[in-house]
Amino acid sequence: MKALGRHILAEYFSCDKGILNDAMALEKFLNGAARAANATVISSSFRTFQPFGVSGIVIIAESHLAIHTWPEYGYAAIDFFTCGDSADPWKAHEYLKNLLKPLYTKEQEVLRGVLDLEHFTYKAQCNLAVEQ
Amino acid sequence: MKALGRHILAEYFSCDKGILNDAMALEKFLNGAARAANATVISSSFRTFQPFGVSGIVIIAESHLAIHTWPEYGYAAIDFFTCGDSADPWKAHEYLKNLLKPLYTKEQEVLRGVLDLEHFTYKAQCNLAVEQ
Repeated sequence: MKALGRHILAEYFSCDKGILNDAMALEKFLNGAARAANATVISSSFRTFQPFGVSGIVIIAESHLAIHTWPEYGYAAIDFFTCGDSADPWKAHEYLKNLLKPLYTKEQEVLRGVLDLEHFTYKAQCNLAVEQ
Repeated sequence: MKALGRHILAEYFSCDKGILNDAMALEKFLNGAARAANATVISSSFRTFQPFGVSGIVIIAESHLAIHTWPEYGYAAIDFFTCGDSADPWKAHEYLKNLLKPLYTKEQEVLRGVLDLEHFTYKAQCNLAVEQ
């Protein structure tokens, strides 16, 4: 059994509220986090909402990083999703945590695409039979 | 206690492999899923990888939808993340499932930003005291 990807869902509490409303800074930080994870940045898109809050996505060759912030609560929801063996999503988390300086965090790692690759051809044939 | 957002992590297994490599179709489907969830689309970005695979993100006013596909395995990892009370991520999931027709799926919902909003001002003051 092998997972195609690792997805860290991180909660950052009690961050600096000014940084959480600064889309330019957050875009720079998330791109840096992608590089810290040894990921390849494809594109990034960040947007500030009114009255406050930022949403940003960095698409990487290995999946994506995402951040959504609620400056009024000092809170950010952050995703670090990487596939393959070369990128490490925990390094992106450590990098970003050092910049956003939350007072406390919660993290959970979810394995994505847990497939029995060894028997995949056989299973695919079974599925084909079911579909016919 | 209130969660700022709901995040469904969905695994679609044994989908049609052709569709999973069709970035234009997937972008149309994900945008439709956002509307089905009663979300407001801000932007979307999709990319095809070589030799196969698509990554796509739809940023919505209520957070984001994301898809990463492995056509060679008939597998897609999909995220439906919405904040607020007006959008329903499960409706996006149902909409997309009907289009991608996986033979089976796995889903888990993760609450993001579970905050004690009633006492938030008090807690923020405590955090300030810690920081000083």
